[in-house]
Amino acid sequence: MKDAYALAGVDIDAGNRAVQRYRELTDAWTHPDQLGSLGGFSGLFRLPGDSRRALVGSTDGVGTKILIAAALRRYDTVGADLVNHCVNDILVTGADPLFFLDYLAVGKLDPEVAAAIVAGVHAACRVNGCALLGGETAEMPGVYRADHFDLAGTIVGLVELDAMPDPNRVQPGDAIVGLPAVGLHTNGYTLARALIGEAEYGASFERTTYGEALLAPHPSYLEPVRAIRRVADVKTMAHITGGGLLENVPRTLPEHATAVFEQTRWDVPAIMTEIVRRGNLEHDERYRTLNMGVGYTLIVPIAEVDAALGAAPGARVVGFVQPRRDGDPRVIVRPARTA
Amino acid sequence: MKDAYALAGVDIDAGNRAVQRYRELTDAWTHPDQLGSLGGFSGLFRLPGDSRRALVGSTDGVGTKILIAAALRRYDTVGADLVNHCVNDILVTGADPLFFLDYLAVGKLDPEVAAAIVAGVHAACRVNGCALLGGETAEMPGVYRADHFDLAGTIVGLVELDAMPDPNRVQPGDAIVGLPAVGLHTNGYTLARALIGEAEYGASFERTTYGEALLAPHPSYLEPVRAIRRVADVKTMAHITGGGLLENVPRTLPEHATAVFEQTRWDVPAIMTEIVRRGNLEHDERYRTLNMGVGYTLIVPIAEVDAALGAAPGARVVGFVQPRRDGDPRVIVRPARTA
Repeated sequence: MKDAYALAGVDIDAGNRAVQRYRELTDAWTHPDQLGSLGGFSGLFRLPGDSRRALVGSTDGVGTKILIAAALRRYDTVGADLVNHCVNDILVTGADPLFFLDYLAVGKLDPEVAAAIVAGVHAACRVNGCALLGGETAEMPGVYRADHFDLAGTIVGLVELDAMPDPNRVQPGDAIVGLPAVGLHTNGYTLARALIGEAEYGASFERTTYGEALLAPHPSYLEPVRAIRRVADVKTMAHITGGGLLENVPRTLPEHATAVFEQTRWDVPAIMTEIVRRGNLEHDERYRTLNMGVGYTLIVPIAEVDAALGAAPGARVVGFVQPRRDGDPRVIVRPARTA
Repeated sequence: MKDAYALAGVDIDAGNRAVQRYRELTDAWTHPDQLGSLGGFSGLFRLPGDSRRALVGSTDGVGTKILIAAALRRYDTVGADLVNHCVNDILVTGADPLFFLDYLAVGKLDPEVAAAIVAGVHAACRVNGCALLGGETAEMPGVYRADHFDLAGTIVGLVELDAMPDPNRVQPGDAIVGLPAVGLHTNGYTLARALIGEAEYGASFERTTYGEALLAPHPSYLEPVRAIRRVADVKTMAHITGGGLLENVPRTLPEHATAVFEQTRWDVPAIMTEIVRRGNLEHDERYRTLNMGVGYTLIVPIAEVDAALGAAPGARVVGFVQPRRDGDPRVIVRPARTA
């Protein structure tokens, strides 16, 4: 299937055009204390009066995963999705999370539902050692259906500038360590919803149900990443979100390097295989739309792989950095079978 | 009219119950670096390794004002609404804004519409000397109508702890200086929309149209507040948002003081008078739902009033602090005519 997302009603080209227009704005003016962001994962801001450290900020939403939560009336898991997504987003800069703020918008405010959602946010903040500093709950009849809601959040972290990852340190021969994904995390849900209808959410699937498999919460990679960084020289990291391995990993590489993933080295979660099968997704579509089982990547020297793997249960070598010749793609996933 | 908001589909009681449930969460755990917030306007977080300063964070949305913008296809003003609302929210702690992140969610992504909205955010950030550090644009068919959107944002600022406003310094006899509101700002729109239908937006009203009067952008009070603080001892400040004078000003007072506003001292914008008339709003309802023409309040010693007024065009004395006897309300607005 081509244009899986267009079929599902999401226009990737429109997204790219919007991003292009945003770039024109920031090209026209950026604050003098704003630092070039690392591959665009998060924005960095020089901490006034402190030359060694910067603040890092990132905003994200849960996306249309919330429609599955709303359909199943499961309000306790989307908070972890949101917070962990944001924690991972700034983690690639080497940042420690400081605090989080949430935005919950509802069509009709049910205090118990709102409390369950925010309790999930609060619990995930606590696990990540991150303050829940505030938030906003907006009741907006006319914008949201009575049983619908939207949930977004902003994280702020602190980074030591000297310890920041640097793509220029990555060399051919380095290993790529992957941390396992448990499911779609927070990407690909508009496509997943087009392929797996609400009527199926209760049906059994791989010792659980389709609904539960789709709702599996986005994990935080804070602890495994900290553990690996304590024992290995982590050169760069990527959080595998929208755009998959193909679009997130290039930001962690120098121009002269290609990341070669070997798909036999890790497991693809069953829900992902099911979506690939139903959508008849071609190779590149899979790896651009879904995480395909790799939630986070860390590039380390080959000599430090054993130490890295020993520090984080579930971590595996998923690929290697190779020299890139003219015209080579930045990321290759082998085998490149198409359906 | 009683229960103006209930009629408009917004349940204030449900909001209060949700806030109560959120408090139970933060009572159960708060991060050790989280500081007690000043009257709940914004959350404060101790800057690691810095005993003199704290970070301040606040998240807010534009509310149902976006439905008026969407109906009029005016996408360039909601960014200023959002940014200025957030700037004012943290300004009451004495904070300087550092950076902002926006969250834009749409039913169908039109890059030109998204660019116009984000250009408004970017321009307002620039005016406030605040970095637009990042943001998220989410296309969520099924959550939002194709022609609808939601816009929220988060601001982070820096505050010198020694210079923070302190309600305990407020004394009977102090003057309350008000900065003028230009319209509803970002509160009361669900009510306004129930009273002024979309068909009327193009109709002329007070040398403009209903639509334009309703869309008048929320101003930033950063410059006038800085100017007043340079010449006068500002003891506390309030941003008059949802809850109006009646619910926002008490947070800036000690227990033993009452704020007495004299409504003859300032002008009520025509659009507010129109909403009060159409909704037949009783006295307390007006001052709890709308800003009624006072966008921001600063409490200063009576001897410094002239200096304060001279520093900020449009600033007026709008009331005084008086001793509070048992059973007195925290805020009184005279005359207390009811409709």
